[in-house]
Amino acid sequence: MGVVVKLSGSRDPKASLAPLIALVEEDMARVNRIILDRARSNVDLIPELARHLIDSGGKRLRPMLTLAAAKMCGYGGEGHVQLAASVEFMHTATLLHDDVVDESNFRRGKIAARLLWGNEASVLVGDYLLGQAFKMMVDVGSLDALRILSNAAAIIAEGEVMQLMTANNTETTEDDYLAVIEAKTAALFSAAAEVGAIVADRPKSEAAALRSYGRNLGIAFQLVDDALDYSGQQELLGKTVGDDFREGKVTLPVVLCYRRGNGEDRAFWERTLKGGNIGDDDLDKAINLIVRHNALADTMDRARHYGAIARDALAIFPDCEIKSALLEAIEFSVDRPF
Amino acid sequence: MGVVVKLSGSRDPKASLAPLIALVEEDMARVNRIILDRARSNVDLIPELARHLIDSGGKRLRPMLTLAAAKMCGYGGEGHVQLAASVEFMHTATLLHDDVVDESNFRRGKIAARLLWGNEASVLVGDYLLGQAFKMMVDVGSLDALRILSNAAAIIAEGEVMQLMTANNTETTEDDYLAVIEAKTAALFSAAAEVGAIVADRPKSEAAALRSYGRNLGIAFQLVDDALDYSGQQELLGKTVGDDFREGKVTLPVVLCYRRGNGEDRAFWERTLKGGNIGDDDLDKAINLIVRHNALADTMDRARHYGAIARDALAIFPDCEIKSALLEAIEFSVDRPF
Repeated sequence: MGVVVKLSGSRDPKASLAPLIALVEEDMARVNRIILDRARSNVDLIPELARHLIDSGGKRLRPMLTLAAAKMCGYGGEGHVQLAASVEFMHTATLLHDDVVDESNFRRGKIAARLLWGNEASVLVGDYLLGQAFKMMVDVGSLDALRILSNAAAIIAEGEVMQLMTANNTETTEDDYLAVIEAKTAALFSAAAEVGAIVADRPKSEAAALRSYGRNLGIAFQLVDDALDYSGQQELLGKTVGDDFREGKVTLPVVLCYRRGNGEDRAFWERTLKGGNIGDDDLDKAINLIVRHNALADTMDRARHYGAIARDALAIFPDCEIKSALLEAIEFSVDRPF
Repeated sequence: MGVVVKLSGSRDPKASLAPLIALVEEDMARVNRIILDRARSNVDLIPELARHLIDSGGKRLRPMLTLAAAKMCGYGGEGHVQLAASVEFMHTATLLHDDVVDESNFRRGKIAARLLWGNEASVLVGDYLLGQAFKMMVDVGSLDALRILSNAAAIIAEGEVMQLMTANNTETTEDDYLAVIEAKTAALFSAAAEVGAIVADRPKSEAAALRSYGRNLGIAFQLVDDALDYSGQQELLGKTVGDDFREGKVTLPVVLCYRRGNGEDRAFWERTLKGGNIGDDDLDKAINLIVRHNALADTMDRARHYGAIARDALAIFPDCEIKSALLEAIEFSVDRPF
């Protein structure tokens, strides 16, 4: 396993999620308690499997968006904590189902649940967490929040199906790719941020601003995720570099590289991604091709474009600590090593 | 494939769903239009796969319960049609996920979707339909109905996980088995009937009566389903006789038969259901054992017990055509050939 590509450099290397994490720390502790509480069940397998995923953590970016957005909107109630927990459950359910669909072996640096408990349990516990997510939303009692999140649930699933249909298709255009990540990733980021304004009963303009912030942050986040799959350091990533390549996923680095390549390059992508015929050296070869065609750097540039839109979306909010933290989360997302 | 067991006999052979179907026919046509409309998507695979399942029909008992309950409660609005469609989507999503979990080859007399489009698509389209179901519920705007149905969604998934954990366990007790079918089947029947009273804004006593009717009808229905798996006529069933046996499911006929059997009989169940070592003649042998120990007839008796509770639950409603049809649906459910 040779090539490790350096992506960052031009940007502030100190951008981090730390300010955001600090600002929502207390609320996040309550989200975690709710999550563990709601993953309880008399059926032992459910809390076991759910805790395996939940304890491993992940960045928890999505629920933090809900908490921070509600706080920035001056919300003083309790509903944002339950909505944030719902958002994380929706995300966790998606991960469980994704791993089954992708036949992934790792998730958040741990062995994928499906390998420990089986595909069946992953499908069903995902369904259970989704049911719990909706129960929590109903408890909050906001039909608008329910509308936004249930709509996101349908769009996410639609995006996953789209992704399944573009898999192995080297002819995928950048627009096709964008449609997939808008649905499978940006829809939940967007809903997570928007419901913060909704639960705080803020005007439509603020809900729309947070929706736009979340959407564009989500697109940027996924673009960088897809770049890291060809460039990240495995021990930081919590997943294996090259997973997308081995699964035949046609992400933006490949879309760009395929289009920019010559006949021989394209034949390589067709053999590996379309044909599924992948040898030992092929990941290194893929990374070299992607670097040679500037496809990683340009993927990161695209991410910065969406990051800039997310930044402008927040302009209508007065400056405050939370706004700064949300802006720094953009910088982190477009320039992160994991 | 030799043995076909005759189960009915003592009961009115003419009990049917026809009166219920006739009474909700117009509403059901609207449910069907909503279902086809909501299964639309720009992602072709989604409507294709959804229509494959939906066109094949099934009994549509669950949405009919919602429609009939609302009508019996004097409801004059539109919400019951969308709730009924939501109930059917929840059920369809469960079937899609079930088939993946059970590795079934047939569903409603058609080749299972997972064999035509793959497990991946079945998981994801199930998620999509669940998302659409919640969107429709939100459109109706009743938080109480949302609470009841989202609670059912979590319980159903919990029941499926329980079933997974009792699979291949020949020591399963009748109580364990009942807990599984209450969750995986009765919870949705119960919620489907209850929301009919909820949307009509009827007093708690009527909601509770319909909840109890649905729950007990659901238990009876599943008991008979499990009996038919050892006794039905394949061409009527729309699935293969012996599916549960081949999948190692420990249903009530087996629970009873195992407990009543001698050492040799138990060794048979352990080899086949626990050990998964099933030869050509073993289904016939299983059926013969079940008949010899009276386990099918007693499963049907248990079903009649729950049917009787369902009947009494409706006693608080004044007599009317719809009530008669709902009562006849009990008779049909406990004494049906498919």
